Amino acid sequence: MNVYTTKTDMRNRISSLIREGKSIGFVPTMGFLHEGHLSLVEHARKENEIVVMSIFVNPAQFGPTEDFDTYPRDFERDAKMAETAGVDIIFHPSAEEMYPFDGGIQIIAGNQSKALCGASRPGHFDGVLKVIAKLFHIVSPSRAYFGMKDAQQLAIVETFVRDYDFPVEIRRVPIVREGDGVAKSSRNVRLTDLERQEAPIIYQALSKGMEEYLTTQDVQKTIHVVAAKIEENSSGKIDYVSLLDYPSLQPANEDTEQVLLATAVYFEKVRLIDNIIMSTKKG
Amino acid sequence: MNVYTTKTDMRNRISSLIREGKSIGFVPTMGFLHEGHLSLVEHARKENEIVVMSIFVNPAQFGPTEDFDTYPRDFERDAKMAETAGVDIIFHPSAEEMYPFDGGIQIIAGNQSKALCGASRPGHFDGVLKVIAKLFHIVSPSRAYFGMKDAQQLAIVETFVRDYDFPVEIRRVPIVREGDGVAKSSRNVRLTDLERQEAPIIYQALSKGMEEYLTTQDVQKTIHVVAAKIEENSSGKIDYVSLLDYPSLQPANEDTEQVLLATAVYFEKVRLIDNIIMSTKKG
Repeated sequence: MNVYTTKTDMRNRISSLIREGKSIGFVPTMGFLHEGHLSLVEHARKENEIVVMSIFVNPAQFGPTEDFDTYPRDFERDAKMAETAGVDIIFHPSAEEMYPFDGGIQIIAGNQSKALCGASRPGHFDGVLKVIAKLFHIVSPSRAYFGMKDAQQLAIVETFVRDYDFPVEIRRVPIVREGDGVAKSSRNVRLTDLERQEAPIIYQALSKGMEEYLTTQDVQKTIHVVAAKIEENSSGKIDYVSLLDYPSLQPANEDTEQVLLATAVYFEKVRLIDNIIMSTKKG
Repeated sequence: MNVYTTKTDMRNRISSLIREGKSIGFVPTMGFLHEGHLSLVEHARKENEIVVMSIFVNPAQFGPTEDFDTYPRDFERDAKMAETAGVDIIFHPSAEEMYPFDGGIQIIAGNQSKALCGASRPGHFDGVLKVIAKLFHIVSPSRAYFGMKDAQQLAIVETFVRDYDFPVEIRRVPIVREGDGVAKSSRNVRLTDLERQEAPIIYQALSKGMEEYLTTQDVQKTIHVVAAKIEENSSGKIDYVSLLDYPSLQPANEDTEQVLLATAVYFEKVRLIDNIIMSTKKG
């Protein structure tokens, strides 16, 4: 496995791979890898000759009051896990390497960014799109792998790739969960022991909510069921519970084929997100 | 020469060329070709195995009161000129082909876009960056060729490529002029006979202004010299005369190595632009 820390070294290697006609599967991450990331790698390995992983905690997607400084980092551990999982190349630049200039040109996410996490994280998805554009240009992947846990990010990245004609195929990878149903996340390590015991209620509540929706088609009642179950059974505070058309992230309507039921819950030191995406087509 | 009108056909051909390891020189145009464009093709031919030209009048870069509908178009003539000049592939999509979706994600040009033409054309450079991003993704060029006549466009595209790590080299090509000094432009055909006789004053005024600046370093006096010479000797109305650091497009200062002296002049049915870029380094 090779590790590159400069854009020039990474790009030179990519140019060679392109000349050799290799397919490149790309797994962008912020590091502190868990089985969710390894699942992305596994999918990428199956479909590509070369797997590139980026490990970069992207300052552009953190707000001024968010957890950029305390976001967990452990490159040595990540590199071992990535190598074991079959990653061929890690791209691990510094913030200075990624953002040496600012000529003031911005990418602004649209209405999709105003729902769900975007409502409480202004500018977050602008920063995501900025780094994704740069990474796609540096890595020139054939396919890029995104987890469905960040359903809003996935929907926005798919829209970006479609509307700006990036020559890359976006592949959706299902959420990986712990045995008790908690969605894998780098941030889970910052739950207290008690919070960790409470956390399975999130997925249980979403499952109950989806059952409610598929039975009643009642959006408000569904949201109430999910929020009440989480608040009554944990110390978590609801940031949002939303049920939306996927991937437009607009209110579900009679043409909706897939619904996203998503929540974000604040615990003492960490905010967790989870979701279920379900087909609403009549069989 | 091949002509492709769909992104899929164009992209399939580009994928073959990439597999064959061919270098691709790209000349983006809005058609109605003149010798300025052919000069771009000539530079592209010298440095690349394949030359791709796009011919697309991009609605996204025209304001609601601008000349999108009346912008001159003649694809048959363009195709013949391009083939004679050595273009291998023309990409000639419709507006519907280029913009079938709008998920609302925008690219917004920065302070560079607020000077010069940008001041009177809000959103123009946002539209330029949108189509350039799409075309670069579809064509995957090794090098792309831009005329120095659109000096502001060139400066903004160079900033975009640098800040977003597009894997393409931007090549600057000098302005091509008629025998009497008028800069070649697709819009020149819309000058009246009298206006066409007056038009050489623009470059004469810029040349006199640059002489003034190199002698006196007096920005205000330089601008006055240029504006007065044009207004006293033609029916044209000045949109702007500006002297700025190039390529930052900010006011020139002691660190400035290149200055741009640029003007835009309104005639009855058309607005012409011209400029001179000059090194200010002491020899």
